[in-house]
Amino acid sequence: MSVYPSGVKVVEVGPRDGLQNEPVPIPTEVKIGFVRKLAAAGLREIEVTSFVRPDRVPQLADAEAVLAGLADLPGTRLSALVPNERGLARALRSGVRRIAVFTAASESFTERNIGMPVEASLESFRRVTQEAAAAGMSVRGYVSTAFYCPYEGPIPPAQVLRVAAALLQMGVDEVSLGDTLGVAVPTEVDRLLETLRGELPVERLALHFHDTSGTALANVLAGLQAGVTVFDSSAGGLGGCPFAPGAAGNLATEDLVYLMERMGIETGVSLEKLAEASLFIEDHLGHGLSGKLLQRLRASGWTPAPATEVAATNRTKPACADSSS
Amino acid sequence: MSVYPSGVKVVEVGPRDGLQNEPVPIPTEVKIGFVRKLAAAGLREIEVTSFVRPDRVPQLADAEAVLAGLADLPGTRLSALVPNERGLARALRSGVRRIAVFTAASESFTERNIGMPVEASLESFRRVTQEAAAAGMSVRGYVSTAFYCPYEGPIPPAQVLRVAAALLQMGVDEVSLGDTLGVAVPTEVDRLLETLRGELPVERLALHFHDTSGTALANVLAGLQAGVTVFDSSAGGLGGCPFAPGAAGNLATEDLVYLMERMGIETGVSLEKLAEASLFIEDHLGHGLSGKLLQRLRASGWTPAPATEVAATNRTKPACADSSS
Repeated sequence: MSVYPSGVKVVEVGPRDGLQNEPVPIPTEVKIGFVRKLAAAGLREIEVTSFVRPDRVPQLADAEAVLAGLADLPGTRLSALVPNERGLARALRSGVRRIAVFTAASESFTERNIGMPVEASLESFRRVTQEAAAAGMSVRGYVSTAFYCPYEGPIPPAQVLRVAAALLQMGVDEVSLGDTLGVAVPTEVDRLLETLRGELPVERLALHFHDTSGTALANVLAGLQAGVTVFDSSAGGLGGCPFAPGAAGNLATEDLVYLMERMGIETGVSLEKLAEASLFIEDHLGHGLSGKLLQRLRASGWTPAPATEVAATNRTKPACADSSS
Repeated sequence: MSVYPSGVKVVEVGPRDGLQNEPVPIPTEVKIGFVRKLAAAGLREIEVTSFVRPDRVPQLADAEAVLAGLADLPGTRLSALVPNERGLARALRSGVRRIAVFTAASESFTERNIGMPVEASLESFRRVTQEAAAAGMSVRGYVSTAFYCPYEGPIPPAQVLRVAAALLQMGVDEVSLGDTLGVAVPTEVDRLLETLRGELPVERLALHFHDTSGTALANVLAGLQAGVTVFDSSAGGLGGCPFAPGAAGNLATEDLVYLMERMGIETGVSLEKLAEASLFIEDHLGHGLSGKLLQRLRASGWTPAPATEVAATNRTKPACADSSS
């Protein structure tokens, strides 16, 4: 029987990783309202926007305005994605206190995604991280394609280790390992963490799963068992790689929080308030969100409830008591 | 790092547990075609129908005709649900070689679902099982609400042990433990199996999860780690307790098979042919099925592929290669 931690940190990436993938532009005030609701739900770390080129990701072109509208938000650490020194300059002017840099474990992916080899991206982020640290900012690092690359296939753990180690060495305080394609399974999570744990402090590693294949929570369980205590997710399953309404991209924060809280692992997040935030943003999208609990809520009037009340919550649906299972 | 088995048995329950919950009646020949496609996909054990009262479950009123239409099917063990001695009489006439009996771990649930106390249901099934064995049939047993009851809340593992032990003792060769509400989490799977393993042969235990809360595959992983090697699932996530299109009821067989095969655990099932079976039955329902892989397939032209080709499969979707995760 595995031993689990008493609590985990949930890093909410919906406003950035989610909204950057939405075809419909979301008004700045809606984004601000969404982040405020997420913070009100108890999320203590939220990636709210990105300083990538507005012409490349128009969905997040209002980064400065979003951050300005959240300047007074207490108790929650907000961060913004920064692709390069130009992005950092914008971040510094915006007053955001935490940034995230991103590269990948796959050369082909990095070349096509950010137009340079992995080593060159690390070189550029060394400068960004030093400048950010000098300005008193903290820095998070993403390693995309930590399991599979759409061009190279399976990625050897040693390749992920090299990139993650370089990020930590340059002063990044947390490295988020991304299953970009959403195809990883628990044995691959085991293998990767076996390799990394010997070399890197596990408390600085985060896992970022997409639920494309329905395996995200099984992978989270494997990550927990390997000692990881930081998990990225997106309210309602917003964004990621939405194949279709209902076909998940990012792991839904509701589903992650449900699993954790019901396992007795504290997240500090209120499922009820979180669902309010997700339903709020869902009203502004052209489609429904993919999170399982959110769909339950929307479809059946399911009311989020504390873990201890989960059975009581379900008492309202004897229709589920089918005749044999 | 956990040790996993080299293979598992997947028990397909879609034709029975799935179709019994569908509002639209499915023509007998469609059910027969569906089961044939499931068998062609490599599923070696399929629960095809139920001998419950036709007025109670009209969806399965054609049990005899479905079994008659499958009499020549080679290589796959077909079974039918039997609620009582009257049902057994029908089963005996139908020529089916395997039946399944069902009770629950919760008194209130059993009272409301089959109208008698648990002990009375066991008494009735003792007679059914003896008669079936005398006729050369094998018998499977279901224990519903093995984790939570919609009326009683959490169910103590000792209560599940008592019912499962009674079923095995009367000659049932496999006991399927059902998370009827789809609210269980891995720690609860651990606790239940800790209790059962000491007293019962784990190879005779099966797990039956509903993916209502997105936790089914995480629970399967916990079950695997506890030594369970038999899992129930439903093609495409058919049936269970469908809150809405996309909100899963039964764990989808595609998702279960994907997890297993990608973890190197053999199922003998072809994902490609399985998806054909699911798409075939989906065409006759009023709604889309909830399985994640099936939604991927339908929405993006995803082609099921052998585990080793999973990355190649995804090479067709660089759109997923978003700018940071």
